[in-house]
Amino acid sequence: MDRTDPEGAIAAAAKRCSNWGRWGADDVLGTLNHLDEAKRREGAALVRRGASFSLAQRFDANGPQKGWRRRTNPVHTMLDTGTDAERGTQGFPHGIGGADDVISMPLQASTQWDGLGHIFDHGVAYNGRRAGDVVTSEGDRITGIETTAGLIAGRGVLLDVGRVFGAGQKGGAEGELPDGFAITPDHLEATIAAHGDTARVGRGDLLLVRTGRLTRARREGWGDYAGGDSAGLSFSTVDWLHGTEIAGVATDTWGVEVRPNEFDNAFQPLHQVAIPHIGLFLGEMWDLDALADDCVADGVHEFWLTAAPLPVTGAVGAPVAPIAVK
Amino acid sequence: MDRTDPEGAIAAAAKRCSNWGRWGADDVLGTLNHLDEAKRREGAALVRRGASFSLAQRFDANGPQKGWRRRTNPVHTMLDTGTDAERGTQGFPHGIGGADDVISMPLQASTQWDGLGHIFDHGVAYNGRRAGDVVTSEGDRITGIETTAGLIAGRGVLLDVGRVFGAGQKGGAEGELPDGFAITPDHLEATIAAHGDTARVGRGDLLLVRTGRLTRARREGWGDYAGGDSAGLSFSTVDWLHGTEIAGVATDTWGVEVRPNEFDNAFQPLHQVAIPHIGLFLGEMWDLDALADDCVADGVHEFWLTAAPLPVTGAVGAPVAPIAVK
Amino acid sequence: MDRTDPEGAIAAAAKRCSNWGRWGADDVLGTLNHLDEAKRREGAALVRRGASFSLAQRFDANGPQKGWRRRTNPVHTMLDTGTDAERGTQGFPHGIGGADDVISMPLQASTQWDGLGHIFDHGVAYNGRRAGDVVTSEGDRITGIETTAGLIAGRGVLLDVGRVFGAGQKGGAEGELPDGFAITPDHLEATIAAHGDTARVGRGDLLLVRTGRLTRARREGWGDYAGGDSAGLSFSTVDWLHGTEIAGVATDTWGVEVRPNEFDNAFQPLHQVAIPHIGLFLGEMWDLDALADDCVADGVHEFWLTAAPLPVTGAVGAPVAPIAVK
Amino acid sequence: MDRTDPEGAIAAAAKRCSNWGRWGADDVLGTLNHLDEAKRREGAALVRRGASFSLAQRFDANGPQKGWRRRTNPVHTMLDTGTDAERGTQGFPHGIGGADDVISMPLQASTQWDGLGHIFDHGVAYNGRRAGDVVTSEGDRITGIETTAGLIAGRGVLLDVGRVFGAGQKGGAEGELPDGFAITPDHLEATIAAHGDTARVGRGDLLLVRTGRLTRARREGWGDYAGGDSAGLSFSTVDWLHGTEIAGVATDTWGVEVRPNEFDNAFQPLHQVAIPHIGLFLGEMWDLDALADDCVADGVHEFWLTAAPLPVTGAVGAPVAPIAVK
Repeated sequence: MDRTDPEGAIAAAAKRCSNWGRWGADDVLGTLNHLDEAKRREGAALVRRGASFSLAQRFDANGPQKGWRRRTNPVHTMLDTGTDAERGTQGFPHGIGGADDVISMPLQASTQWDGLGHIFDHGVAYNGRRAGDVVTSEGDRITGIETTAGLIAGRGVLLDVGRVFGAGQKGGAEGELPDGFAITPDHLEATIAAHGDTARVGRGDLLLVRTGRLTRARREGWGDYAGGDSAGLSFSTVDWLHGTEIAGVATDTWGVEVRPNEFDNAFQPLHQVAIPHIGLFLGEMWDLDALADDCVADGVHEFWLTAAPLPVTGAVGAPVAPIAVK
Repeated sequence: MDRTDPEGAIAAAAKRCSNWGRWGADDVLGTLNHLDEAKRREGAALVRRGASFSLAQRFDANGPQKGWRRRTNPVHTMLDTGTDAERGTQGFPHGIGGADDVISMPLQASTQWDGLGHIFDHGVAYNGRRAGDVVTSEGDRITGIETTAGLIAGRGVLLDVGRVFGAGQKGGAEGELPDGFAITPDHLEATIAAHGDTARVGRGDLLLVRTGRLTRARREGWGDYAGGDSAGLSFSTVDWLHGTEIAGVATDTWGVEVRPNEFDNAFQPLHQVAIPHIGLFLGEMWDLDALADDCVADGVHEFWLTAAPLPVTGAVGAPVAPIAVK
Repeated sequence: MDRTDPEGAIAAAAKRCSNWGRWGADDVLGTLNHLDEAKRREGAALVRRGASFSLAQRFDANGPQKGWRRRTNPVHTMLDTGTDAERGTQGFPHGIGGADDVISMPLQASTQWDGLGHIFDHGVAYNGRRAGDVVTSEGDRITGIETTAGLIAGRGVLLDVGRVFGAGQKGGAEGELPDGFAITPDHLEATIAAHGDTARVGRGDLLLVRTGRLTRARREGWGDYAGGDSAGLSFSTVDWLHGTEIAGVATDTWGVEVRPNEFDNAFQPLHQVAIPHIGLFLGEMWDLDALADDCVADGVHEFWLTAAPLPVTGAVGAPVAPIAVK
Repeated sequence: MDRTDPEGAIAAAAKRCSNWGRWGADDVLGTLNHLDEAKRREGAALVRRGASFSLAQRFDANGPQKGWRRRTNPVHTMLDTGTDAERGTQGFPHGIGGADDVISMPLQASTQWDGLGHIFDHGVAYNGRRAGDVVTSEGDRITGIETTAGLIAGRGVLLDVGRVFGAGQKGGAEGELPDGFAITPDHLEATIAAHGDTARVGRGDLLLVRTGRLTRARREGWGDYAGGDSAGLSFSTVDWLHGTEIAGVATDTWGVEVRPNEFDNAFQPLHQVAIPHIGLFLGEMWDLDALADDCVADGVHEFWLTAAPLPVTGAVGAPVAPIAVK
């Protein structure tokens, strides 16, 4: 890679990996087209013990956001409370009392899927549409996250790159990659080899890549977790992500990609190919730690995964409460 | 039932059906305790075709809320847009552009689970806690919806009472019960019998009851869908709900219960037993129509169901994007 | 006026009334340039009794908005309450307790000033700037309402057209013009004549025009108050508004202009000249009733007026709590 | 003062300074009762030059809040933009385009008035009401800020304690008091003496006290401006504030009082007397710098001040855009 030419590298990768037109001019689902009913049967068959794992962070004011690009943490307020109910201020009959609540939050404040309207390349969105035809102030009129409703359920695979490569790295720790560690296709393949056959990755799979970044944030405090340096996928994984025909990839970092990025003066170059050209669904800030512990314990890195984003009409990203079951 | 004495009926039912202390003084999960790993294995085994169904309504400004008790529809606004990206106002390098968004919404604006802190009986919450010790302005400190993270995944059963009883009722229609239709245990059992063995309901199941109310709202407009009259569960189902040991029950109505309620001057009396005394999880405003059509088509009323609420810390209810897979 | 050619009428009026460049290429204040220190001295001298009048509606969930263009009513929730304080859940020392609150609202939900970035003519904003150079998803970068901070204080004049012309109109009432009543320059001049010398209107004045529309909404319910039919200024007032060199004009209606508009297939044509071409500040949904009653009582239609919008950075409109003092 | 007994000091001060019942059992205005029409005439007569000054900070994401007690900075998002209008995505006729916006913010995020429901003493609110009878989750039912609509206009006086005492203090600077500097009645009287006759303070006045804290935050960054250490009024001013019969007092700090407070293990003890017992209106985070510069320049410390809070129904505090005119 030529560090000085992100634009050239992006253009070349976009040409190699484009899925524009692959599923028709009207397609809004991108790589979710890879996730079919057979894959769901395969995924459900992976439930052997019935153990379930939440892969979501909690949504609250103590989250990672610091206000960057007006991304704040969720603000949760009450419309009615138990103190009011107990005090008798609510005016309901026969002793019933209630509590109710409200939330205000960026849709990408915490555990989330990026939608296909989240990123553009030179003003062009997924499938070659003009960005301004897709996402206006009224939201994403075409590829809004609600178009994925019901689809994201299938076979999940966890590649715990943090565990396989963390301890040996300068600045890394047991199970945690250091900031700036660029996960290459070789790292991914070596992790699959280390994990064994249950970690194979193929068409329609929902890939989870653990770096250990969230583990560290939990221990040391959020710091720059949201928007700052991190281990993550190298730009060089773009062909691998395209070629494996996975349905989506999620990590325990804020932005999937390694940070600092691998080009000078760059910002999330892998996104610029993955979303508008591949149509790939990216998951961010997932909590993979409990599941990863279990995978180490039983040696099985595949599972039944459901991860339906909240179907906010026109959203370019949405919170999700994924559940993995083994 | 004595229509003039909701308070007496509630007190008697609460005594009969109480689960206080059943899972220890510290329990926060109520009937989710019924949903165990065996049940998840049973649920996963129901995935035969791999067909998936979203049971969530879309979350947007065109929803059912009219402002009752400050419940408004979701307000979704953009932090960045495709028009800005295309116009070149964003200032990012190498041609990348982005869109981002924010939502502000009551947590019970649309498809949702009630948490155990949502309803109180005479100032007392689930497991006998004082309401003011549980839910203050800072939210639910004990039974917040985040405590359910990862758990709500198992066997789902659809009882399409609307289809079985709708056509024969005055004011009803093909597949739709009329407003005020009180679904009794007899109706539930008759529906199970009509559906056949795949509709049996037992310990740990996630029960879905379709009335057809949402179908009508789709056809005729929201009207009073949120907060108004509806078919729904009769107060007399309380012992059945308790005795079956289901993990939760969700309907396609705003409030699970028949409206008007069956007592004079009453408000949601079944809630007053179900949530604080049984510790039962109630789902509201679920979209059961596509799944119901499929159940008619293949005659199978059971399926895998994941329905993890967004884990908002301290929430007394939360939006959910349930996925059923058959 | 040719009812079939709003575009032509707008273009011609824009040409006649343009203030582009009048106060320099960098100007962001438009007609507020007319409001100078002498005018403030004149305004302050009008305080004879010391009687003050709030011209703001209350901001709450019972407001006029119905969701049109995602304009909802304000949602006000509490962060802390007196019930919590009394119950002792707050954890503060020496018996202090507190209440705190949050609001979520469209900036133009109720009593408000339009900023100069609120309306564009064929993609062009005030002073000839391209709309996309002025207002992006990040807000108004040039003419944000905060640029008016401290300026809107001077001589106010109330023209009670509703009282002068209401009773005589078909569909009107005592003090209330009927919907669709177009207030022309003749009506304005006749109202000034009826009110007498204290109602004269000139350079730098803040003009208030009462139609009685809010009075009716208070009596009959909001109905279509926000966004629907109304009496209001005729498009033909555009030269009068420009020629008088007023600093701003506010009414008791949602949109200043007569509705339905006076052209076929039109939407707020007067705005399209007033804001981007004249740079005129328009106030909407002001409550002029108490002040109007007083003006009838004492025969004085001029007063001190302060009406500083909340200085939200980059806002294209903002709520205001105006105070008139006589 | 006994540093170890805030509760005793508060109780004694409350007894000395109570205004309970002074204006009747139903009173909701507290010290605003001191501000009468004569005072407004006196205030308006102070307009000699017509120069106006905004005393509001800008409301935006770059404000002082850090999330303490869920107080965040305002989040301002657009419903429509100029880029959309220029791009032609809005669908309006005859070339009109528009921009609109929304805000979500704590009511006490920036320049603001505390309402009388903001603070309680041992569960009791202003005029002896139980806190839970006044402020529930539905807001302040009795002393909501909307009850002050139209009233806060009168004579303002600026006491620039920062200028008079700042330079001589350890840790202070030219015009800026150091953190922890407790402004006593002696400091206030000495400042009045230094400023001369235009700075006299009496019944019905709106008193502004400048510490220089905001000046420093502007220079050094917000740091702990919101919620942290600061110069401010000493608890010992409580009798002076009561005895002068001022209508309200505002400062350029987040919390009016000196911080750290003057008692061990204390939190805003002056508030606990001033609001519930005196019924005194406290203004916080006002920007007094430009006005203070002018007062130095012309030697006049009195002016016409209008400062109407946004009349949010049931609010216990509200943003305000004050205008001083000299």
